[in-house]
Amino acid sequence: MRINENFLKLKESYLFATVGKKTAEYRAAHPEKKVIRLSIGDVTLPLAPAVIAAMHRAVDDMAKKETFKGYGPDATCYGYDALLDSILSSYARKGVALEKGDIFISDGAKSDCGNILDIFSAENTVLIPDPVYPAYFDVNVMAGRNIVFAEASEKNAFLPMPDDTVKADIIYICSPNNPTGAAYTKAQLKAWVDYANRQGAVILYDAAYEYFVNDPALARSIYQVEGAKECAIELCSYSKTAGFTGVRCGYTVVPKELIRGGASLNRLWARRQSTKFNGTSYITQMGAAAVFTEEGEKQISANIGYYRNNAKIITDCLDRLGIFYTGGKHSPYVWMKCPGNMTSWEFFDYLLENANVVGTPGSGFGKNGEGFFRLTAFGTEEDTREACARIQALLGK
Amino acid sequence: MRINENFLKLKESYLFATVGKKTAEYRAAHPEKKVIRLSIGDVTLPLAPAVIAAMHRAVDDMAKKETFKGYGPDATCYGYDALLDSILSSYARKGVALEKGDIFISDGAKSDCGNILDIFSAENTVLIPDPVYPAYFDVNVMAGRNIVFAEASEKNAFLPMPDDTVKADIIYICSPNNPTGAAYTKAQLKAWVDYANRQGAVILYDAAYEYFVNDPALARSIYQVEGAKECAIELCSYSKTAGFTGVRCGYTVVPKELIRGGASLNRLWARRQSTKFNGTSYITQMGAAAVFTEEGEKQISANIGYYRNNAKIITDCLDRLGIFYTGGKHSPYVWMKCPGNMTSWEFFDYLLENANVVGTPGSGFGKNGEGFFRLTAFGTEEDTREACARIQALLGK
Repeated sequence: MRINENFLKLKESYLFATVGKKTAEYRAAHPEKKVIRLSIGDVTLPLAPAVIAAMHRAVDDMAKKETFKGYGPDATCYGYDALLDSILSSYARKGVALEKGDIFISDGAKSDCGNILDIFSAENTVLIPDPVYPAYFDVNVMAGRNIVFAEASEKNAFLPMPDDTVKADIIYICSPNNPTGAAYTKAQLKAWVDYANRQGAVILYDAAYEYFVNDPALARSIYQVEGAKECAIELCSYSKTAGFTGVRCGYTVVPKELIRGGASLNRLWARRQSTKFNGTSYITQMGAAAVFTEEGEKQISANIGYYRNNAKIITDCLDRLGIFYTGGKHSPYVWMKCPGNMTSWEFFDYLLENANVVGTPGSGFGKNGEGFFRLTAFGTEEDTREACARIQALLGK
Repeated sequence: MRINENFLKLKESYLFATVGKKTAEYRAAHPEKKVIRLSIGDVTLPLAPAVIAAMHRAVDDMAKKETFKGYGPDATCYGYDALLDSILSSYARKGVALEKGDIFISDGAKSDCGNILDIFSAENTVLIPDPVYPAYFDVNVMAGRNIVFAEASEKNAFLPMPDDTVKADIIYICSPNNPTGAAYTKAQLKAWVDYANRQGAVILYDAAYEYFVNDPALARSIYQVEGAKECAIELCSYSKTAGFTGVRCGYTVVPKELIRGGASLNRLWARRQSTKFNGTSYITQMGAAAVFTEEGEKQISANIGYYRNNAKIITDCLDRLGIFYTGGKHSPYVWMKCPGNMTSWEFFDYLLENANVVGTPGSGFGKNGEGFFRLTAFGTEEDTREACARIQALLGK
């Protein structure tokens, strides 16, 4: 018996644990201070009424023999028609034509962004942006893949572009990015698509934050770019779009046009999912199907608008202070440069002690995150305003 | 770019597709006949009222800011306390003491029975019963593992016992078994536990059907056997216990005592799940937490009793006919020998044409399934009675 020894190469991440520990210690030492967390990575607004109503109806369906639902309708995509139709209509509004068979319903993009690797050889080289959501890195370490990085920095506004001298088989792109909030234009993504097609590589495009995009020049789906169906898998999520972090629903698009090694990746993924997955809750799916209805979109847009306004409060503050940042406009994340050449953790301590505001040190997202700091828009408007007033008072001195 | 070429070694399974196609063809040719399906592998009774009520409450929680739930409570096990406590109490009633940290909440046992392999080296040899649930085989083919079989047959009543001359690192056991319905006694399982501990192997024990067991000599959990915490991972599901096939909830037990290659498998699995999974729906978990309450157990026991009575109708019929079978008493599955030395598919056709009853050919579950046939108890009582009367009339001639 041998364990998967690649697991021993994983580094323990103490990022959020240390943030939590330092915050708790400060609170214990200063019980009179009101500490505000601009570090929240989870949504805080409740589900939209249209989603709630659809879920109640679905629960009632499960209570009666005539309407009870067992295993999902199809062992490959597992999607109920109501959900698949609403996803197709949402894509159509973005100018993207897909077919039902291209779409796989899952319990969330995080599962799929690791599980999708099952269909690829462990011999492949993976290209991952730095900084980025740490799971991309860890899931590939677990599989023993060779990893190279696309270097993001202030110089390229945290939007690295492809380099033909770098050979890669699998390319992760997250746009709008976590943690930097930076979002690619369609023209920039076209360069990535062309690079992937030249290399015979596959792009894993994480579109979890696409609903925050508010500029037609920026991509909301990689399939808005010509040639993407021949090289890209798109990972989508209801988590940030509709507050589903605790409900768990996502969808992954593997176009039938995507062929590698003579094999249809759509068929390989269908086989993977039918063998190692058994679908997403009927109740969850009915809730998700309500998201892209007229009523649902109106309600979730209001929620996204609330978070977007918080982001604007933060970026307005940084604009006044003349601090470099990315994100915030098309993302719930604002990625600011630490003032006075502080390291990420130095600024964390400085902000906690002097403004009683908690953020997330950028160095936790990769080596290029050092000297940067992530603020999020998922708090309340009142807290966000107060935190920014304190930051202004502290850094505007 | 290379795909995972192990996928090309997978055989397409046409079992259920062919059953469906032949049934549809017969129906089209004989619209006047009432065809009864004793091939249903899915539950058909609705969710218990206690579960429905808990789910409605949970949906309401998601509608209000004060009670809204985002990401699950813990990035390793993802279980809410109410659910973990109810699982611990259910184990306690079986005489098994576990701790919360041993239990991982998932979206179902099928996901975990494949995903758990991530923590083991692809070099390991896997021992799989034949016949058995085909996913065990396929997930290991995908990972390129060497596979050997524990041969089940009429001779050992489809309960193969360990053989010390066979070297294995990972051992799948499903008890009560799908498709044979055969269930190990605690004494028989002890032999497997001792074998695994001698070999330094890990048992993956699929307990999905444990709630059908109605005899204290038979195991409901492998942890009822001494030494199991040192070698066994138990995969549990609400699917058949509480009709959750369309709701998706399971739990996997990895005791802290389980060490292989110097590593805690509990910690490896925690790392796998925190990296490649993001928890199970809060609504689902609250529904599941209601299953093992006093009210919930009473209601699901009534449902299980209904299915068990159907199984008895089938086994009584086979007893009268003097046909060898396993299962049915502690399982929703009855595994019968095809009469007259027919092959599985010959008997399928014979039964469909002459009794208008549909079952599942045993040969679809492995080479040792040839000449056997699976009937299930998940239909209605009326249909089960009528189907058995027809079988009696046909085979009792």
